[in-house]
Amino acid sequence: MTTSELGLKGKVEAANHEALQRLVAAEPVLVDVAPAGEVVTDLTGRWILHAGPPIRWSDMCGAQRGSVIGLVMFEEWAGTPEEAVRLLDTGEVALEPNHHHHGVGPMAGTTSPSLPVWVVENRAFGNRAYCRPTDASQQFGDFSEPALAGIRHWRDVRAPAMRAALRQLGGLALKPLLVRALAMGDELHNRPNAFSSLVANAVAPALVEADLPRPDLLATLGWLGGDEFLGLGLSMASAKAAAEPAEGIAYSTMVTALARNGVEFGIRISGLPGRWFTAPAPAIEGLYLPGYSAADAGLDMGDSAITETVGWGGFVLAGAPGILALVGGTPAQAQQISRDMGEITLARSPDYRMPIFGFEGSPVGIDIRRVVSTGIVPTIDTAIAHRDPGHPKIGGGLVRAPLACFTDALVEFGRKHGVS
Amino acid sequence: MTTSELGLKGKVEAANHEALQRLVAAEPVLVDVAPAGEVVTDLTGRWILHAGPPIRWSDMCGAQRGSVIGLVMFEEWAGTPEEAVRLLDTGEVALEPNHHHHGVGPMAGTTSPSLPVWVVENRAFGNRAYCRPTDASQQFGDFSEPALAGIRHWRDVRAPAMRAALRQLGGLALKPLLVRALAMGDELHNRPNAFSSLVANAVAPALVEADLPRPDLLATLGWLGGDEFLGLGLSMASAKAAAEPAEGIAYSTMVTALARNGVEFGIRISGLPGRWFTAPAPAIEGLYLPGYSAADAGLDMGDSAITETVGWGGFVLAGAPGILALVGGTPAQAQQISRDMGEITLARSPDYRMPIFGFEGSPVGIDIRRVVSTGIVPTIDTAIAHRDPGHPKIGGGLVRAPLACFTDALVEFGRKHGVS
Repeated sequence: MTTSELGLKGKVEAANHEALQRLVAAEPVLVDVAPAGEVVTDLTGRWILHAGPPIRWSDMCGAQRGSVIGLVMFEEWAGTPEEAVRLLDTGEVALEPNHHHHGVGPMAGTTSPSLPVWVVENRAFGNRAYCRPTDASQQFGDFSEPALAGIRHWRDVRAPAMRAALRQLGGLALKPLLVRALAMGDELHNRPNAFSSLVANAVAPALVEADLPRPDLLATLGWLGGDEFLGLGLSMASAKAAAEPAEGIAYSTMVTALARNGVEFGIRISGLPGRWFTAPAPAIEGLYLPGYSAADAGLDMGDSAITETVGWGGFVLAGAPGILALVGGTPAQAQQISRDMGEITLARSPDYRMPIFGFEGSPVGIDIRRVVSTGIVPTIDTAIAHRDPGHPKIGGGLVRAPLACFTDALVEFGRKHGVS
Repeated sequence: MTTSELGLKGKVEAANHEALQRLVAAEPVLVDVAPAGEVVTDLTGRWILHAGPPIRWSDMCGAQRGSVIGLVMFEEWAGTPEEAVRLLDTGEVALEPNHHHHGVGPMAGTTSPSLPVWVVENRAFGNRAYCRPTDASQQFGDFSEPALAGIRHWRDVRAPAMRAALRQLGGLALKPLLVRALAMGDELHNRPNAFSSLVANAVAPALVEADLPRPDLLATLGWLGGDEFLGLGLSMASAKAAAEPAEGIAYSTMVTALARNGVEFGIRISGLPGRWFTAPAPAIEGLYLPGYSAADAGLDMGDSAITETVGWGGFVLAGAPGILALVGGTPAQAQQISRDMGEITLARSPDYRMPIFGFEGSPVGIDIRRVVSTGIVPTIDTAIAHRDPGHPKIGGGLVRAPLACFTDALVEFGRKHGVS
């Protein structure tokens, strides 16, 4: 190593220390459920945000196309799927990544102005992030009438009720609930069950106090206490709110986003803000719902890997063996995956000490240098969407991030700092 | 072995098969929260039921004495602790075990006529069992004004509200929630956290529908969503409701109750119904709350080991590592305990497949023959009460059932069937 390389190494260590400290210092608080148009203030006209790195309409995968068509109809910019496609073909709807607007979205991740989103404020830094709600159909590319009725019900009943309850509460501190949920076998990506349940417990009294119309109160309470995936939108928004303050620290090689659009897998790193490093989206190894098989599967998709970015999901799979029924694999493999993730991270979580590993902290803070030097890539547990538009969720599984994203990022990092 | 011994062995196997099938067939449904006096119909006058095998007032341990004093004051049979003691000294309050009246109670387990109890019906057999509510003070022997105010609030606000909600629901099926909670890291004895949360979510809409006074609704909803030990009373009543149909099967050596009163540890077995086999209550190895130490500790106490009787608690400790912060020990020890419990049980649960053991069913159905032949005794995770009256909860730990209970039961079983 040359002297300048040694100097660079010290700068990188210091920058990564700072990035990591910011990441783990996050204090996510659920403050609102607001129409995306109120939250995304830097766009006007017709726009739909999507999961993953930037992509054109003509290049989108089937599920994301289906999900965009659904939101065009939800917004009533078109009355039929055919009209929606015409509108999209002529470029009359701007398409941009959620990540460019402080947001994330599960699966297709599509977000449009009147779709209410979860809004999380990171009270340690004052920044806010949003996430669209989870569902098992529209976000997977299903634009049928029942799928659209689902998000209309969210817009008209559940979201306003939750907004009223959150105003009543003055915000709901999520960190204590996230930590408790991890100790209850959640990994906060595809198994947010305990987190969902705890959030429902915490919000129920405020829903009553919010003086909602009785049918809305009962409909919302019933959904709230029964939707095991409710928590994913909140854990994703929490993760995004935690990751953003760690962005833009010169010399840091820490990952601040992992995101996929079903065509490309993209990563962002702290020290090269605004840049995406992409590679073809990988296939998922998983389990399928009845009537579907690997032949139907689209490629890896969704901003939900923001949970792995902050050290949840695949990184804590060892502590969430209940998820294996959904994504496949054995407890031994889950433990190996979490151990492997410890090889590519900067530190151990001060918040989640994993019983299965003798209460050692969970791995957190992905370092592209370690990924490249070990060849170990982040493992993500994820849902599977159909390759074609128009289908609901078809399965779940495990996927490995493509090494090329990390290699390319490291090469660019080296080039910027004069090292090959 | 003689021919008659071989014949006996066949009868025992068949009887144990039947007992086990009855145990695992249970379908517990929470049907009511009713004053104990409405549920315990075979007693009149002044009575208090207690945890563990039968014991006289003069022989009771400090915590159970304190808890009985508390209920005498709660029932307003006496205005001061001194008056209560006089009443008890003169035998004017009948004291009997919960277990003699289809019931169970955590820790001191004290239950009096106007104290509302959880009522669980086993829909597979039509029998009902009850359990008094959990709290961290009165059931531990604390008879201070705040401790009594706590159970008065339960009697006057929470219990009537829950009763109204359960009528609204037409009963709450607990088995699906118990199974989900086990997969969320509960062991359903000292860690009923997920179960509590799931119950709270299931009941919340019915509480709203029950048209309660608004302050009562809000107070009950707030408690319901925040009391992590709420579920213990329900898991205990479920376990008791499951165990009773397995009682009284001639030739069965399966345990149908493990219960302690702080002085004696007692067991009951299916083939010798109505009999207790007792030994001195053991000391607990555990962790203490600030301000307390082992020198303050009473001995093992409570009917809550009915959860171990049906295969929860210590038997599934391996799947509930989150509890170790409360009771001490390492994940490796927890796994060893669950493996050991598999050496003394008749079968594997068809309902709870433990991820940590490659989805093998959890051990269920304690066989006294296996306990005696292996020398392995049931391990119970438990709370710790003070040795003196007047204190709240002081800690938690692990305790081993005394082997003598099992040896004595087997000797008596052999005597009854002409085998030495």
